[in-house]
Amino acid sequence: MNREEETIVAPATAAGGAIAVVRLSGPDAAALCDQFFRGPAPLAAARGYTVRYGRIVDGERTIDDVLATVFRAPHSYTGEDSVEISCHGSAYIVGEILRLAQAAGARMAEPGEFTVRAYLAGKLDLSQAEAVADLIASSSRAAHALATGQMRGGYSAALEELRRKLLDLTSLLELELDFSEEDVEFADRDELRRTMESIRREIDALRNSFSLGNAIKEGVAVAIAGAPNAGKSTLLNRLLHDDRALVSDIAGTTRDVIEEQANIDGVRFRFLDTAGIRATDDRLERMGIERTLASIARAQIVIHLLDATTIAGGIPAPDFPLREDQTLLTVVNKTDAAPALVLPDEAIGISALNGTGIDRLTRALRNSIDTEGLFHGDSIVSNSRHFQALGEALQALDRAADGFRNALPPDLLAEEIRGVIRALSSITGIGAIIPDEILSNIFSKFCIGK
Amino acid sequence: MNREEETIVAPATAAGGAIAVVRLSGPDAAALCDQFFRGPAPLAAARGYTVRYGRIVDGERTIDDVLATVFRAPHSYTGEDSVEISCHGSAYIVGEILRLAQAAGARMAEPGEFTVRAYLAGKLDLSQAEAVADLIASSSRAAHALATGQMRGGYSAALEELRRKLLDLTSLLELELDFSEEDVEFADRDELRRTMESIRREIDALRNSFSLGNAIKEGVAVAIAGAPNAGKSTLLNRLLHDDRALVSDIAGTTRDVIEEQANIDGVRFRFLDTAGIRATDDRLERMGIERTLASIARAQIVIHLLDATTIAGGIPAPDFPLREDQTLLTVVNKTDAAPALVLPDEAIGISALNGTGIDRLTRALRNSIDTEGLFHGDSIVSNSRHFQALGEALQALDRAADGFRNALPPDLLAEEIRGVIRALSSITGIGAIIPDEILSNIFSKFCIGK
Repeated sequence: MNREEETIVAPATAAGGAIAVVRLSGPDAAALCDQFFRGPAPLAAARGYTVRYGRIVDGERTIDDVLATVFRAPHSYTGEDSVEISCHGSAYIVGEILRLAQAAGARMAEPGEFTVRAYLAGKLDLSQAEAVADLIASSSRAAHALATGQMRGGYSAALEELRRKLLDLTSLLELELDFSEEDVEFADRDELRRTMESIRREIDALRNSFSLGNAIKEGVAVAIAGAPNAGKSTLLNRLLHDDRALVSDIAGTTRDVIEEQANIDGVRFRFLDTAGIRATDDRLERMGIERTLASIARAQIVIHLLDATTIAGGIPAPDFPLREDQTLLTVVNKTDAAPALVLPDEAIGISALNGTGIDRLTRALRNSIDTEGLFHGDSIVSNSRHFQALGEALQALDRAADGFRNALPPDLLAEEIRGVIRALSSITGIGAIIPDEILSNIFSKFCIGK
Repeated sequence: MNREEETIVAPATAAGGAIAVVRLSGPDAAALCDQFFRGPAPLAAARGYTVRYGRIVDGERTIDDVLATVFRAPHSYTGEDSVEISCHGSAYIVGEILRLAQAAGARMAEPGEFTVRAYLAGKLDLSQAEAVADLIASSSRAAHALATGQMRGGYSAALEELRRKLLDLTSLLELELDFSEEDVEFADRDELRRTMESIRREIDALRNSFSLGNAIKEGVAVAIAGAPNAGKSTLLNRLLHDDRALVSDIAGTTRDVIEEQANIDGVRFRFLDTAGIRATDDRLERMGIERTLASIARAQIVIHLLDATTIAGGIPAPDFPLREDQTLLTVVNKTDAAPALVLPDEAIGISALNGTGIDRLTRALRNSIDTEGLFHGDSIVSNSRHFQALGEALQALDRAADGFRNALPPDLLAEEIRGVIRALSSITGIGAIIPDEILSNIFSKFCIGK
């Protein structure tokens, strides 16, 4: 039997809720469930999109009263016949149902195997399938918008358009080969150059969107740097505390404690731990400072935190290095203790103690992440595999441009362009055969039951 | 609007799975969902036990692709119209659906409120409703059998039979009142006495089953007591390690790490931490020993662990007190280091180091819990509220028996018997009005969404 002909089973919900769902998919899903499901009629006879109330039995013993929902190919997530069993949320009961399903001939699904089947059945392309995992992990409005955009295929459409343009180019180039002895050029070289340049710009734009996409997906890294007594911990507590009010809408939906992360207006920020920076001979303290500098290097945003009571002489320059792609926010704390101090416009005065100015700071944090395009459907890359493939496409495009400049014969030029197509195809899986080990690698990051 | 006329909403699954389920119940459940669900047709027009594929929308914005299952009163868990929305398992998406449902007029459900409604609609009696929470929490075959038995109402049937017998008795006694001037006895006093005695035996039996029921539900408490170097930790590791093999069937179904618990042949054992016992003047060590003695007092089973290399003179008596209802297992460790030692039959020789004798020990642990009756449908009490109510019933029965011996007039005797009926009725809620605060107290122990 091919692996695709096997019926697979897995729990689709986490342990610990009022109910749990066990999912089966494959040609025998319904008939297989009938071996341990007792309802008003066999599930094998049920129409798709209908629910049956019944009992899960192990011989004479009743395991649970459940609801079984039947889906018929191709109208299911996987495109195959499927059954979802909704039972009481006990780990023991879920374990018994999995055991009975396996005894009846099902095999435990591997991580992401339901989605692999949806991909193989052509229900989703590869980048859409990958977006499913991102969607499940999304914990902010922006991360959700990112995953939804990718899952709905806006992304794939853009890549598919590029791929088609390149395919047209190679066809024309290959046509020249058939007439090579006549020295004709079907592919207008000027148009070819212009097209390659425009494709380069598009790939570049997608590639450049990765730093935003990755920040939104993983959370925007913020380092709070400053002298040991500037009030970093108080500020962090203040930011996290304010966050709790912001995320209380979804209280009760998760029991995972997320430490040092705050959701500000739909974007998740991760606050990196930093020790104070000062010149020191102490070896331990120097190690702490090295870690701080590493945190600063990893951050998209660095808050340079100063103590209002120590800067009468003016705002000092940061004593840490910054890159061009990083945002610096100069924040002066303890303004309550220095009421006479006048700050320049670009500095944000706050009192972490009593909350003054925190609103302006959170607005500044939020404004440094431009999500306008995201919420209006721009294609933004957030997947590092895609980022890497886009890089490979760019390199191939560079080689093709070189070949073009050096008047490479059309067959060699076409081969270089096919390198670009291969790199782009590997993102969606459209027009490409994705090797099994790459598929397993992609889906191994999925959870069981998806 | 009465609380029962409101439509309630809650997440029904824990965060962290591939899918999540949000549940709504109440007269407007379907129409209310139509405000944010876009499917092929309105849910309000859907028949019960059917599934619709559609999108959750917030105005123009799509939140998720979902499946919505519609249930029609009275054919649902609560007995009301209900909708279950199955979405991608993201905390953000679940939060958005809860927000949209509330904006559309639903109210967040309190813990157990779906089950309260099932109880108020007469779908379950009170002891069956309580068994739902036990079923969800069950993590061993025995705890599952206990909860299932109670949920299927075997338990309620036994109590209902007792209640009816008592009701018949009071009716006869009250009939005598109508003819009080004629001095007749409709209730044969001999039969009355025999019936009360048999009821006493039945309540007693139920009440005595609590120590088994509670042990199965909470896990059987086992203390490992012995001298500091007898090998308690090695034995514990060995028992827990062997357990992992036993429970690996349900691996992947839960990520909760259960420490110091082992599932042996369908029964969960909890190993209580104990320090070694020896005479000492050290204050800290004495405190440890006091804690050990407290653990021993709480245990159903005490393993008296001895070191084979130190008992050439014979097996010493335990140096801790034991109650009659506790089981003592004498276990001699390190038999590998004392190959010549001959043990009496009742002692179990083991080597925690290499695993010799561990099978015999786990069998002895398991055999000390008699689950024969449990797996054959015996009524076993595991709920402490029921245990307390049975105690109250017994006290009332004692008073009635006193009254009977003292030839109390029939109306006073009937009143005492009604006290027994009230106590029994409070368990199932049948024939009783359960005050709201007792209901809230019972259901506050439920999880959200059940």
